[in-house]
Amino acid sequence: MSFTKTVSDLTLTGARTAIAAAEARAKEIGVPMNIAIVDSACHLIAFSRMEGAKVTSISIAIDKAFTAAGHKAPTSVYKEAVWPGGPAFGIGNSNGGRFMTIAGGVPILYDGVVVGAIGCSTGLPKQDEDVAQKGVEAVEKGLGIKAKL
Amino acid sequence: MSFTKTVSDLTLTGARTAIAAAEARAKEIGVPMNIAIVDSACHLIAFSRMEGAKVTSISIAIDKAFTAAGHKAPTSVYKEAVWPGGPAFGIGNSNGGRFMTIAGGVPILYDGVVVGAIGCSTGLPKQDEDVAQKGVEAVEKGLGIKAKL
Amino acid sequence: MSFTKTVSDLTLTGARTAIAAAEARAKEIGVPMNIAIVDSACHLIAFSRMEGAKVTSISIAIDKAFTAAGHKAPTSVYKEAVWPGGPAFGIGNSNGGRFMTIAGGVPILYDGVVVGAIGCSTGLPKQDEDVAQKGVEAVEKGLGIKAKL
Amino acid sequence: MSFTKTVSDLTLTGARTAIAAAEARAKEIGVPMNIAIVDSACHLIAFSRMEGAKVTSISIAIDKAFTAAGHKAPTSVYKEAVWPGGPAFGIGNSNGGRFMTIAGGVPILYDGVVVGAIGCSTGLPKQDEDVAQKGVEAVEKGLGIKAKL
Repeated sequence: MSFTKTVSDLTLTGARTAIAAAEARAKEIGVPMNIAIVDSACHLIAFSRMEGAKVTSISIAIDKAFTAAGHKAPTSVYKEAVWPGGPAFGIGNSNGGRFMTIAGGVPILYDGVVVGAIGCSTGLPKQDEDVAQKGVEAVEKGLGIKAKL
Repeated sequence: MSFTKTVSDLTLTGARTAIAAAEARAKEIGVPMNIAIVDSACHLIAFSRMEGAKVTSISIAIDKAFTAAGHKAPTSVYKEAVWPGGPAFGIGNSNGGRFMTIAGGVPILYDGVVVGAIGCSTGLPKQDEDVAQKGVEAVEKGLGIKAKL
Repeated sequence: MSFTKTVSDLTLTGARTAIAAAEARAKEIGVPMNIAIVDSACHLIAFSRMEGAKVTSISIAIDKAFTAAGHKAPTSVYKEAVWPGGPAFGIGNSNGGRFMTIAGGVPILYDGVVVGAIGCSTGLPKQDEDVAQKGVEAVEKGLGIKAKL
Repeated sequence: MSFTKTVSDLTLTGARTAIAAAEARAKEIGVPMNIAIVDSACHLIAFSRMEGAKVTSISIAIDKAFTAAGHKAPTSVYKEAVWPGGPAFGIGNSNGGRFMTIAGGVPILYDGVVVGAIGCSTGLPKQDEDVAQKGVEAVEKGLGIKAKL
């Protein structure tokens, strides 16, 4: 029985790698994005607003990352669960209204553990999630390469 | 690669023109309104509460304008998108609960760019949007005339 | 009498230049920082949390930038003005408590106009302002060079 | 013993008269202002942001008017009362932090009764109060003239 533990967490370097990959994808699909990266404790590490991204999507991007890191699941999983009668109906009011149930927040894993999350916003939910996913993959690929060396 | 850019924004003169036209329409249909005008960055430029407009519609009018400017779309577009199962269900919780998905917020464009928005509230959503639309048209007409001179 | 006006604003490229310079200075003095950049309308453009920066300084950095851009002055100018009896005593409660009166927020100017601001937090106020100042200078130098070309 | 009462309240016309006079004064002293007018119940009637007024002063102007109408006194009266040891120390935290204790909020009276208030912000507290005062006088003069007719 131990009184302390070690936590795996995303670094600023990891966060920037995710942002760079997400931005590249956003440019590819022609939708400027707000991109937020949080650590395993849901706290902001890095944020980037591309030219043309919506200012009312700044907090949405941050809150999507917040939600994905905290609940350890992509925000898209709530789509049906938050319908009236669904098991998570009303959860969007929690955490001071910051719990986002729209696609575009995706956790970043390392060795099966959530070390952070990315949240994207400005496009359609599908586009937001696509862009976020590219950010996640870049980090996971990077981690994989590092692990091999 | 530049460190600054140039943005078009609505003036107080433009904002007042929109309010005057919206008020005229509100009188025509016999529904007193709260009318709010924000700039392209969602900040309040001018506000007017007509005699008899609802006090609990003050913030609704302001938040409709906020939403229309930030997301660059009339708030009426969310009507079905925020139904359970819709792609934007839950977005009303974002931005500290200020994201309005009820008709009555309309962006004001100049040369195809959103320079601000108007938000109206007190009537039925349809009436609120009708009144807001008249405000938008007055500014756009004014801009058109100016452009021709 | 015009309905629209033209406003200068900071770009993401400008924001990143400021962050890079601020980070370099933070490393030099050995104090990891939260660094936030906002546009002329106080909205977040970019944010970076260096390894070891305090998580409770994330919002302080963002709010310092918010205050410096909105009030068009370094947050350090309030030091004595907010003392009991000072002309700005109590201003820290304004804007939902986001008005920061501690050094570390500095506006970024271009041609004498505020185009955005930087906010830094984790160190002593003096250190926060020093680091922020380096960010400002990098942008202003960059703008100067551009203007000459 | 009666179950209902009649309340004197400021109209939109009165509010606009106050704004016009305040704006004229702001131009005279060369300080663009945010100007807010609330009714006797502290609710916003009209608001105007002059070109160049600070965006972080929007809510300050509104909250000064809110405070002056609600507490039926100019916000400048709190200057010494809110010092440590003063009778109102800490009152700035009340009303969700909206209670402003900086000069620039002034109640508007009719027949000795507060019918609303004006709040101004962007300049020095002294300037804000000067501009607000001109708004109050215009309404009071207008009411006096009306009473004579």
